[in-house]
Amino acid sequence: MEGKEEDVRLGANKFSERQPIGTAAQGAGDDKDYKEPPPAPLFEPGELKSWSFYRAGIAEFVATFLFLYITILTVMGVSKSTSKCATVGIQGIAWSFGGMIFALVYCTAGISGGHINPAVTFGLFLARKLSLTRAIFYIVMQCLGAICGAGVVKGFQQGLYMGNGGGANVVAPGYTKGSGLGAEIIGTFVLVYTVFSATDAKRNARDSHVPILAPLPIGFAVFLVHLATIPITGTGINPARSLGAAIIYNREHAWSHHWIFWVGPFIGAALAAIYHQVIIRAIPFKSRS
Amino acid sequence: MEGKEEDVRLGANKFSERQPIGTAAQGAGDDKDYKEPPPAPLFEPGELKSWSFYRAGIAEFVATFLFLYITILTVMGVSKSTSKCATVGIQGIAWSFGGMIFALVYCTAGISGGHINPAVTFGLFLARKLSLTRAIFYIVMQCLGAICGAGVVKGFQQGLYMGNGGGANVVAPGYTKGSGLGAEIIGTFVLVYTVFSATDAKRNARDSHVPILAPLPIGFAVFLVHLATIPITGTGINPARSLGAAIIYNREHAWSHHWIFWVGPFIGAALAAIYHQVIIRAIPFKSRS
Amino acid sequence: MEGKEEDVRLGANKFSERQPIGTAAQGAGDDKDYKEPPPAPLFEPGELKSWSFYRAGIAEFVATFLFLYITILTVMGVSKSTSKCATVGIQGIAWSFGGMIFALVYCTAGISGGHINPAVTFGLFLARKLSLTRAIFYIVMQCLGAICGAGVVKGFQQGLYMGNGGGANVVAPGYTKGSGLGAEIIGTFVLVYTVFSATDAKRNARDSHVPILAPLPIGFAVFLVHLATIPITGTGINPARSLGAAIIYNREHAWSHHWIFWVGPFIGAALAAIYHQVIIRAIPFKSRS
Amino acid sequence: MEGKEEDVRLGANKFSERQPIGTAAQGAGDDKDYKEPPPAPLFEPGELKSWSFYRAGIAEFVATFLFLYITILTVMGVSKSTSKCATVGIQGIAWSFGGMIFALVYCTAGISGGHINPAVTFGLFLARKLSLTRAIFYIVMQCLGAICGAGVVKGFQQGLYMGNGGGANVVAPGYTKGSGLGAEIIGTFVLVYTVFSATDAKRNARDSHVPILAPLPIGFAVFLVHLATIPITGTGINPARSLGAAIIYNREHAWSHHWIFWVGPFIGAALAAIYHQVIIRAIPFKSRS
Repeated sequence: MEGKEEDVRLGANKFSERQPIGTAAQGAGDDKDYKEPPPAPLFEPGELKSWSFYRAGIAEFVATFLFLYITILTVMGVSKSTSKCATVGIQGIAWSFGGMIFALVYCTAGISGGHINPAVTFGLFLARKLSLTRAIFYIVMQCLGAICGAGVVKGFQQGLYMGNGGGANVVAPGYTKGSGLGAEIIGTFVLVYTVFSATDAKRNARDSHVPILAPLPIGFAVFLVHLATIPITGTGINPARSLGAAIIYNREHAWSHHWIFWVGPFIGAALAAIYHQVIIRAIPFKSRS
Repeated sequence: MEGKEEDVRLGANKFSERQPIGTAAQGAGDDKDYKEPPPAPLFEPGELKSWSFYRAGIAEFVATFLFLYITILTVMGVSKSTSKCATVGIQGIAWSFGGMIFALVYCTAGISGGHINPAVTFGLFLARKLSLTRAIFYIVMQCLGAICGAGVVKGFQQGLYMGNGGGANVVAPGYTKGSGLGAEIIGTFVLVYTVFSATDAKRNARDSHVPILAPLPIGFAVFLVHLATIPITGTGINPARSLGAAIIYNREHAWSHHWIFWVGPFIGAALAAIYHQVIIRAIPFKSRS
Repeated sequence: MEGKEEDVRLGANKFSERQPIGTAAQGAGDDKDYKEPPPAPLFEPGELKSWSFYRAGIAEFVATFLFLYITILTVMGVSKSTSKCATVGIQGIAWSFGGMIFALVYCTAGISGGHINPAVTFGLFLARKLSLTRAIFYIVMQCLGAICGAGVVKGFQQGLYMGNGGGANVVAPGYTKGSGLGAEIIGTFVLVYTVFSATDAKRNARDSHVPILAPLPIGFAVFLVHLATIPITGTGINPARSLGAAIIYNREHAWSHHWIFWVGPFIGAALAAIYHQVIIRAIPFKSRS
Repeated sequence: MEGKEEDVRLGANKFSERQPIGTAAQGAGDDKDYKEPPPAPLFEPGELKSWSFYRAGIAEFVATFLFLYITILTVMGVSKSTSKCATVGIQGIAWSFGGMIFALVYCTAGISGGHINPAVTFGLFLARKLSLTRAIFYIVMQCLGAICGAGVVKGFQQGLYMGNGGGANVVAPGYTKGSGLGAEIIGTFVLVYTVFSATDAKRNARDSHVPILAPLPIGFAVFLVHLATIPITGTGINPARSLGAAIIYNREHAWSHHWIFWVGPFIGAALAAIYHQVIIRAIPFKSRS
């Protein structure tokens, strides 16, 4: 019964990886072309001597810089106009965020893994896909890049920037902070869940029929969360993006909600990491046996 | 004459699989690299003992939860604003539905087959791509996920949700129930026809030049049907989506049309399954010989 | 110097297929993995006995039916509303046309070649990619499908359909018939040129690095031409689409311009076929030697 | 430790190509399946005798012609309407530019490399991906194609064209020339950086898991830059596009800013070439050792 089935078509993925409950770890048959990579060590001293480590950090800096520059500039173009019809509109803002993530993940995936978001780095760190050293380095570089990107937008037209909210994330009037936090948690869950699903090495090995076009669904996830939650929080789901805009805008009401845009994304990323490792990959059950 | 032709280019697929009428079943030549998988049994007791069966159900639940959450939240953001120009607009709603299906099918295709829609499950069941047990389990999980997703949206802002129709599907004034039913039937036909065409195992084996990027056309099909039929029914083509919104909204006028959003999609899915099996795959003619 | 170079990267396609002028036909070296298929015969009696021939015709009928149904319904939804902001907008119409072509070409490419457009069929016929018999059969089925698709839209809401122009193509006030014809010629050139480029068998054989994702650029070409020429002619570039709407709408002013939507697309398709065969493929120079 | 690691998954690209700093050139291990192509010579006399050289130039001419025709016609359709809601809107213009680049790069990549933009040609020339002869020939053909494309749009409706700015690039009121120049520099950096990243031959050889779908992120980059900078400069990032519109429009205020749309893109392209060669590819460090 095992090992013969190759019914892995999209619409009918019935029996692939059939694991009798409780014996998952023994079922070497369906994992034959895949070996779980060992978890990344917390500290990897060797990294600090490699050029690729620093290059990856520079790539995260540049990518987050370009991300904030393009997206906040788009937000400003929409905000300054009284008639949204004469701009790219709120939908255009959503495309800007999602599209930039698509293009930048595509461009930096081979250099740094293409995180461009501390919540993504945090989720992947929880799944032990990268070392603590690297995670902290990435997050610092992302935040610096975001600050610089927002700074350039302010530099182009300071009055416009300060008069239109500076692209900073705040919970909109009419919504409680709890709703805002919830929106950030679920929104980041959508993003990090997509990152895990689209880049799952086990899946890649097993389902070679699934096209490895990961940046596209990841970019779409960002686009879709923006469509839904721009009216609630302006959509963070990326603490570097929220921090960059908050530091450059630097007005009190932007800071008073700022914790939501770190706590929410980190909780959402953690939930996505847990969901993927426990339910989808069933790693705890495997390591127990 | 047979067996030499490999003219399978997109623009000129002239003779591939040439089957003299009435002798299709004998033409083993053009099917040489493909063997029809046997139809799934109605009941597959072995499934119920496998972790992947329950994992698939959980994945369908989570995917449909996220689907309703993001899409209904997007609908609310558009509905609450008097000027649609200051929102993502009706087109943004269509992107939300289509984009979420793209991303979620991409993410769950390897786990559950990525149905996220009882009509898709029903169509694939009719084509015997999955067992009755699995089909019922999926549909139950999809409906539960949809209810929870709509519930979270209501929880964020109850007054807004109840004051703007709750994302429930109803036939718009000016259209008869017959038109609404027709729109649901043809709309679901477009979706399920795309699912069958994009995931056809025979095609995959034969036409390796056709890129296996199935989630993209499937997501686009959902997007396009929404562009066309939001003005008529709000677009169901997914009974779980319609049920989730109806239960959480729970007002009489949403319930009075509710049957349309089960009967229409199931008829449309059945027609697509018949079209694909009888015309495109010519299965009855083959099994007869 | 010949035969060693494999520099076919996107950004730097310098020397691939270097053909000293006038000796192109001798350069077998750079064509080694590709053999020009023989031109399709004008009449291929064997086709008429094959099930795949009739199946292809049915697939063209169904695809063109769905194409007109979804697109004309989208046009009606936009036309009936006084505020375009409360609809998917003109841009949504363009997505509808382009997206349907993407999804339908994807779905029918393996069955009929995915033409869904008499101009595409005509262009491919000129390049001798399919027989005259097949070309005529496809065009007839496309026109029948288009009439049925537009008919269903009219059936849903007859007053709405007749009161909003029925989706028929006419040259807009302020433009001459010459401009309308020119817009149709160049627009169809863009489409058929994309079809040829994206599906070029020679290119597929040589440049395996170019992803064979042909339906996406083809769908985008349709989308882009609609963005540009909806204000001029409503955008035909597909005689079946123009004919279907004209027959169902059947008012004089739709018929008076109708010739433009056959002559324009056929000229554009012919120019694209000539450009591709003479300039890109240099076939006349080859056969001469 | 070296040479065993193949951890190149998207989310966790930790150690691939680990190069101890300063010894990069010795680390043959991680480059084993890739050999740096030699820089293109400045003058390659052999090119001038090959048909593919002239064919590439014609392809650049036709592609830039179609690019200007479709995009400027879309701009005119939006500009002429007092209510942007009744048009495809500014977002539609951004799609037009980005989508055309996607489709045209896809179509011409195998013929000319798919530049369609003097800034791209300049950036690739700086990286020595093509000869000076070819670079100049491409830029001349691109500019001629752009002039013809804009000319056809003017020919369709001269009054409309001249009355709505002719699609020419100017710095918008409220922005300094410095801001306009900066927007052009960073915008072109985004584009050329994407071109380099998406088409990097080394990356292709090493990371075969990264889908080679380069035209899509390149097209998106153009789309995104337009979303952000249409309100500032109308978005050039393509000197041929700016020149074509300026020559056909030919009014003084279009010419007075024209230098910005050559200097900005060329600086941006140079920075992207330097960033890619020095940081991402670390070529200077390699050749030094």
